[in-house]
Amino acid sequence: MTRHISEQFDAELDAIQLKLLEMGGLAENQVKNAAAAFVAHNGDLAGEVRGNDRSVNALELAIDEDCTHIIARRQPAASDLRRVIAIMKAGTDLERVGDEAKRIAKSAQAIEGYERPDHEYAEIRRLSTLVSTMLTKSLDAFARTDVDDAFAIIDLDDEIDSLHQDVIDRTQASLESGETPAREALAHIMVARALERIGDHAKNICEYLVYVAKGEDVRHAPRSS
Amino acid sequence: MTRHISEQFDAELDAIQLKLLEMGGLAENQVKNAAAAFVAHNGDLAGEVRGNDRSVNALELAIDEDCTHIIARRQPAASDLRRVIAIMKAGTDLERVGDEAKRIAKSAQAIEGYERPDHEYAEIRRLSTLVSTMLTKSLDAFARTDVDDAFAIIDLDDEIDSLHQDVIDRTQASLESGETPAREALAHIMVARALERIGDHAKNICEYLVYVAKGEDVRHAPRSS
Repeated sequence: MTRHISEQFDAELDAIQLKLLEMGGLAENQVKNAAAAFVAHNGDLAGEVRGNDRSVNALELAIDEDCTHIIARRQPAASDLRRVIAIMKAGTDLERVGDEAKRIAKSAQAIEGYERPDHEYAEIRRLSTLVSTMLTKSLDAFARTDVDDAFAIIDLDDEIDSLHQDVIDRTQASLESGETPAREALAHIMVARALERIGDHAKNICEYLVYVAKGEDVRHAPRSS
Repeated sequence: MTRHISEQFDAELDAIQLKLLEMGGLAENQVKNAAAAFVAHNGDLAGEVRGNDRSVNALELAIDEDCTHIIARRQPAASDLRRVIAIMKAGTDLERVGDEAKRIAKSAQAIEGYERPDHEYAEIRRLSTLVSTMLTKSLDAFARTDVDDAFAIIDLDDEIDSLHQDVIDRTQASLESGETPAREALAHIMVARALERIGDHAKNICEYLVYVAKGEDVRHAPRSS
């Protein structure tokens, strides 16, 4: 009952998972380029990111279709079914990661002509590196079904949330003091929020993995330390 | 092949769909209360909204579990499987709607002690009414598998996007002119963004319905007028 018997199923599932990892790689690139475009006030790169979002979306649809087909044809049970569903959900999260990258790119375009501030977005760069690492690690853990890693990655989210809050507070203060122009401050805050949300998506992917591996759902569950 | 033969399946699917509608009702209430709390600078109501988010999350988990079980036990094919998957996806969107309501509530708390502005958030109130209507209608269309309605609701999203952009532009201008304090302006913009995203989720739900009814995926597809 709880073990599938078909090697064909395994091969098909591996192929879908590969597609998910490909999508993850694309989404990661989008995030990195969007953040780079923002930090450098590079409108052209931002435009590229906005255009590339289509490829991320197309992969989500393909993964959804593959997952529906494998369920209909192979009728997987228990942990196999959970994995297919987890892949489908992870695909949705990656699509939203792509949307956030697009939002970052939009913010980059909004301040394209502005002079770069003295702080050179040190915090955004740190946040973006953290979030990209978290995303890479979450997909890697997902591919290897490494639950210990998944829990470690979930814990990273606290660091991201706190760094994100720092950016918001500091930018708000510098907006209030008149140091930063409104449009620049708003863009800065929007980018920090988008990065924080990308961290949430990476966390979701880890939580799906825990659900696959343990058959328990850790979403929305209070964590004991 | 394309028609299920079990009345039992229908009864179980109806029960899950009912749970989705219950979740939709809860999410709608959360949005309405969060927007009301923001407009009235009512921190207590905002606190209630933040606390109630747990109930929305719990329903998502229950729906996910029901959907996984019905797929494993009943092995639905074709349109039945598509409907189960669509319900699961809609549940995820409603959970995110709840998250946005929580974010609105957080913004309400951020400006709790502030004096209410002269415009009394006319635009936010209009945006919130529009978005709530869109959410109600999308769930209603989903329950009745009404594809024509779904398309009409998807079109509503343009109005929401444009109203949202108006709020952003106007608030940014009034922030630049020094008319609105920074914290108030930021909260205002955050709430507009959250409402706009709720509209996106309602649109997603309609798109899942089209996918169920027609077996075609309209997400990310350019619409011809």
